[in-house]
Amino acid sequence: MSRRVGIIGSGNWGSTIAKIVGTNVHALNNFNKEVLMWVYEEEVNGKKLTSIINDQHENVRYLPGIKLPANVVATPDLCHAAKDADVLIFVLPHQFLQKACAQIKSVLKPGAYGVSLIKGLALSNEQGIRLLTDLIREELGIPCAVIMGANLASEVSQENYCEATIGAKDLTIGRELKMLFQTNYFRMTIIKDEVGAELCGALKNIVAVGAGIIEGLGYGDNTKAAVIRLGFMEMKAFIYQFFGERDPQEGTFLESCGVADLITTCYGGRNKRMGVSLATSNKSLHELEKEKLDGQSAQGPLTASEVYVMLERLKLQERYPLFTAVHRICTRELPASEFINCLAEHPSHM
Amino acid sequence: MSRRVGIIGSGNWGSTIAKIVGTNVHALNNFNKEVLMWVYEEEVNGKKLTSIINDQHENVRYLPGIKLPANVVATPDLCHAAKDADVLIFVLPHQFLQKACAQIKSVLKPGAYGVSLIKGLALSNEQGIRLLTDLIREELGIPCAVIMGANLASEVSQENYCEATIGAKDLTIGRELKMLFQTNYFRMTIIKDEVGAELCGALKNIVAVGAGIIEGLGYGDNTKAAVIRLGFMEMKAFIYQFFGERDPQEGTFLESCGVADLITTCYGGRNKRMGVSLATSNKSLHELEKEKLDGQSAQGPLTASEVYVMLERLKLQERYPLFTAVHRICTRELPASEFINCLAEHPSHM
Repeated sequence: MSRRVGIIGSGNWGSTIAKIVGTNVHALNNFNKEVLMWVYEEEVNGKKLTSIINDQHENVRYLPGIKLPANVVATPDLCHAAKDADVLIFVLPHQFLQKACAQIKSVLKPGAYGVSLIKGLALSNEQGIRLLTDLIREELGIPCAVIMGANLASEVSQENYCEATIGAKDLTIGRELKMLFQTNYFRMTIIKDEVGAELCGALKNIVAVGAGIIEGLGYGDNTKAAVIRLGFMEMKAFIYQFFGERDPQEGTFLESCGVADLITTCYGGRNKRMGVSLATSNKSLHELEKEKLDGQSAQGPLTASEVYVMLERLKLQERYPLFTAVHRICTRELPASEFINCLAEHPSHM
Repeated sequence: MSRRVGIIGSGNWGSTIAKIVGTNVHALNNFNKEVLMWVYEEEVNGKKLTSIINDQHENVRYLPGIKLPANVVATPDLCHAAKDADVLIFVLPHQFLQKACAQIKSVLKPGAYGVSLIKGLALSNEQGIRLLTDLIREELGIPCAVIMGANLASEVSQENYCEATIGAKDLTIGRELKMLFQTNYFRMTIIKDEVGAELCGALKNIVAVGAGIIEGLGYGDNTKAAVIRLGFMEMKAFIYQFFGERDPQEGTFLESCGVADLITTCYGGRNKRMGVSLATSNKSLHELEKEKLDGQSAQGPLTASEVYVMLERLKLQERYPLFTAVHRICTRELPASEFINCLAEHPSHM
């Protein structure tokens, strides 16, 4: 029997992925050509978004100007998208993940697995940080791989050359995901370290805020490179310290999900921009998000505060001076101008 | 008896280092306060450069506006600078290194060691590439460490926070160098992998040309990050393949001499600029260097051609598609527009 893919989410990244996976599935013999994509229903110019996508083959709301293959079928019914899928692609905003899992839990096909493309963390009262994939694994009782990397949806959807990393403990899953996702412009490397790949994708946003602060303070390329590298070292130390028993790998940091995503995020994107604003204005983070991000949240300050909960609990602030300073600058406890002083005696230089 | 430092070179980086080391030596009990700096004598406004430096404590030609400590003494006599030194700091343009070594060989103090701050490679007929430190080690019969990192002289001389890596097999040497070089704004990490650190400093210039080509072709941040990362992977593969028996370390790539220097160089500097020009014009490299660099050479194209000699000899072009393509674009055998096609089937994605 042929296998099926279901896509949970349809923002700009989800729609980009729908274009890629829809095209690839078309050429794979062992897959059903239809790819169901769950769309949170809304009206656009008086029409339902799902109808527009299915009629015009374009997500005019979140990825305008890019044609989707006709075999990608939008549905407003989450359970419908999920229930026959062997491969569940999670690509929705992380605050909706828990609810989505609760809804589809009872309808899943036996043997299904998930792959998360979501960059972020969840908080849990017991453990501090909780991986979004652990939420999927535990709520749904299925394996869950990740795809992470230096991927701006707008560039990927225009078929500009880039890379991504598949983190999959199970190599059979990794290979199937590579068949589903790789194209001549979207190049995939498979690694086993799914936990390291996911954490790099989340933690790098904290570093990007720091890179923006440095830029906003008027420092040059050397200082920015130092801050990016120190942030990278804290990412690595944090992953080994808090997730060491889950076998993170040194090599992960050199993959697209590590160094490449870090570089892209520290030179462009909203987290870096928020850092610049924090350094050049005295307004609160909330005000800055309202002004600069149309009220949306940047991921970096949120991740910094989630990470800080764990650092504070174990009194590890001195071991992670960059993570700590970024958090305290975001909350305005610390003036941005003090950032460099916080890094002067970094444990990496001991 | 107190130890002495001699600085071989006095360009903008050499003068910056003279400022730092001169200041540090002043506070170290076991060092002679006088730091001799060899200056290639030239006339500036009718006066000798050495006299100007010794009278005004400023290298008005190569580092104007920055005061040097009075205990840094310029000398036009290379052997004078070298003969009593226990620590020889090599910081001159690499094309002058061989001759300088020949001159000082017979006057060196027993027990002296070298540290190279020069980023580049030498060619030898027998082995292909020769490390500049091997030239020092073999010509002079002394140990030689390196200091590499994301260090633009102009930023370091203005005391902006940055980092560097000391590569020293001998930890006693590494610790002494850290005492001599570290300040509150110039932060040093010691690693044992001196060969890996030196090679990162040289090879990253090839990648920077590639990053410039991508920028010149109009690609965005994703593609640039992919190219930087693929270049990084080729640097690593090359170091293990050709210098594997000299114990390169995975961790070196995450130090300032690795990832941080790579990032800085791929976002700024003349090698990246030369890459942009190669992609946006049809002129020869030579013409571009004449126009854009005042006739000076960029290091990247030169290093690419030196590396290519070794790849060609062993028919390894397909294993190093980025290094190969950068070289062939520099020589104009390959149109810059073909660059991305050369990376489509990169061995990192197999």
